[in-house]
Amino acid sequence: MSKEYTVAIVGATGAVGEQFRTLLPNAKFPIKDIKLLASKRSAGKELAIGDKTYVVEELTKDAFEGVDIAFFSAGGDRTIEFGQAAIDAGAIVVDNTSAFRMDPNTPLVVPEVNPQDLAKHNGLIANPNCSTIQMVVALNPIRNQFGLDRVIVSTYQAVSGAGAKAIDEMRKQYRAIETGEEIAEPAILPVGGDEKHYQMAYNVLPQIDKFQDNHYTYEEMKMTNETKKIMGDDTIGVSATCVRVPVVYGHSESVYFEVDQDDVTIEDIQNVLRDAPGVVLEDDIANQVYPQAINAEKRTETFVGRIRKDLDFPRGFHMWVVSDNLWKGAALNSIQIAEQMVADKLI
Amino acid sequence: MSKEYTVAIVGATGAVGEQFRTLLPNAKFPIKDIKLLASKRSAGKELAIGDKTYVVEELTKDAFEGVDIAFFSAGGDRTIEFGQAAIDAGAIVVDNTSAFRMDPNTPLVVPEVNPQDLAKHNGLIANPNCSTIQMVVALNPIRNQFGLDRVIVSTYQAVSGAGAKAIDEMRKQYRAIETGEEIAEPAILPVGGDEKHYQMAYNVLPQIDKFQDNHYTYEEMKMTNETKKIMGDDTIGVSATCVRVPVVYGHSESVYFEVDQDDVTIEDIQNVLRDAPGVVLEDDIANQVYPQAINAEKRTETFVGRIRKDLDFPRGFHMWVVSDNLWKGAALNSIQIAEQMVADKLI
Repeated sequence: MSKEYTVAIVGATGAVGEQFRTLLPNAKFPIKDIKLLASKRSAGKELAIGDKTYVVEELTKDAFEGVDIAFFSAGGDRTIEFGQAAIDAGAIVVDNTSAFRMDPNTPLVVPEVNPQDLAKHNGLIANPNCSTIQMVVALNPIRNQFGLDRVIVSTYQAVSGAGAKAIDEMRKQYRAIETGEEIAEPAILPVGGDEKHYQMAYNVLPQIDKFQDNHYTYEEMKMTNETKKIMGDDTIGVSATCVRVPVVYGHSESVYFEVDQDDVTIEDIQNVLRDAPGVVLEDDIANQVYPQAINAEKRTETFVGRIRKDLDFPRGFHMWVVSDNLWKGAALNSIQIAEQMVADKLI
Repeated sequence: MSKEYTVAIVGATGAVGEQFRTLLPNAKFPIKDIKLLASKRSAGKELAIGDKTYVVEELTKDAFEGVDIAFFSAGGDRTIEFGQAAIDAGAIVVDNTSAFRMDPNTPLVVPEVNPQDLAKHNGLIANPNCSTIQMVVALNPIRNQFGLDRVIVSTYQAVSGAGAKAIDEMRKQYRAIETGEEIAEPAILPVGGDEKHYQMAYNVLPQIDKFQDNHYTYEEMKMTNETKKIMGDDTIGVSATCVRVPVVYGHSESVYFEVDQDDVTIEDIQNVLRDAPGVVLEDDIANQVYPQAINAEKRTETFVGRIRKDLDFPRGFHMWVVSDNLWKGAALNSIQIAEQMVADKLI
């Protein structure tokens, strides 16, 4: 009989935790038991997974006994405080926060791109940032075939990436507008931990995460640094502009990229993407077919369309990349990391 | 006594026509009379401008007698059918449609950028596309100082650019979502005249105007072709990705550009934009100050912020450009064209 796994979800009550609960019943490894861990405040709450009900337990250092795989998505501080306890208890930690992503001893993995890095783990695997994952899923097959020199990306990111409270804040703004009430003072978006907050309804906010010394936001630098690490190539240029739009689920990205070969055609790029793992090509402009955020919701794939040659630089191309930021961008990619490790006998 | 001008608004009842009615009382030339022209269906309707009420008249070829300046924003077909009649009656036509923009005998003018082209008119001046105007207002002062080789732009365009009915369609979708009703089958967005229509609420649509043979949309090619014509330089590279977002007023743009000099700094770009005509620099990241669509509504200026050096190409920069698409993007720029022509004694 094959091994069965006990799984913990740390941050079980959050927006990403909810997606773990939705997706785990379809994981490609047998599950013996599931532990839902969250703050003391949520302990005792009952939550359903498939047709079973589980009671949320308080996250403590003793909570990981018997756990084989622990999915962390409760903020970087929680991973820093409790991750080692989980590893010491014998669990593999798959961490959805940014705490260890750039740590040289931690693999940062998108299974379609760099599954080979999983073997180098020291108990913890980092799940990349949502906006990075869908971009590298689309870019990596192109890179394998034609090389990749440089990327310029502008994102159209969904509010769910800022958490359940941010969704609630935006939806209340729309309700207030439609009923003629005054909009409550924003308290979360664009960045919960930053000083100023702005209206999201009918607006566009060019700030995700805090600003860095080089005038880029932390989110933008994640796209730069994580792409290089996942692809294992520091020479690839990546500059990002990360923008929040009033969408609930599904990040969209306008991606410009330069390949390393002459004479590559739109059809060449389409052909590569048509057969690429985790990618659905939606590029039929005669029938107005292109990826849309609302169509990507609760879909596992990354959708790519609007492929065009740059009008000036012969090796330059543009494409439009959309994926569910809570699924492939977070919970699903983490589960796929665990699936790959089980298949590779690393767990 | 200085000359007084009789002004006609063709398409007076539309989304842009409404902005002409708002802005004309502040025009920098004396107005003798205003004629509101629209389809037969709207004739007889009463509309206010300032503290006066005007009766809408039917648009016919005889409607332009005594008109000095005729602002057209009723679709390209209307300009093609009625524009010459207005010119023959002695009016200067300022056309907000795309019908004559690329006509080599028609000046395409943004007054901050190429006022000198007005003198070459043959009775008709074309007002550029909304997304082009705000971009060239921001780029031209940079180009004057440091040269400009190449532009890559991704837009976040407001629904008002698709007209009053498109706004209504989107707002009804939000109301249906918030009240739990079913969303009516979309009939307008993304492109009224195209075959398929998609939900705009909580969605992002990477199509504005119809697709061309090169896989770009007509809107994207407007940005390419109009930028070269306004700047009078075919060697500037421009590739665009034009995207509709669920915003009512205010286009936002993520603009990457390459200057023609080494060693240009963020501060150099900021200094040029701080003194540029029609531009407001909003680039104070320490205080989370950057342009936002909702702040640009009913403002005359183009707002620029988030200026960064590209991380890979030393002559490359990124910036975020926002303006009211119905004001500077349409009615205001048309009025400014007329103001400039009056000042230059061309009318």
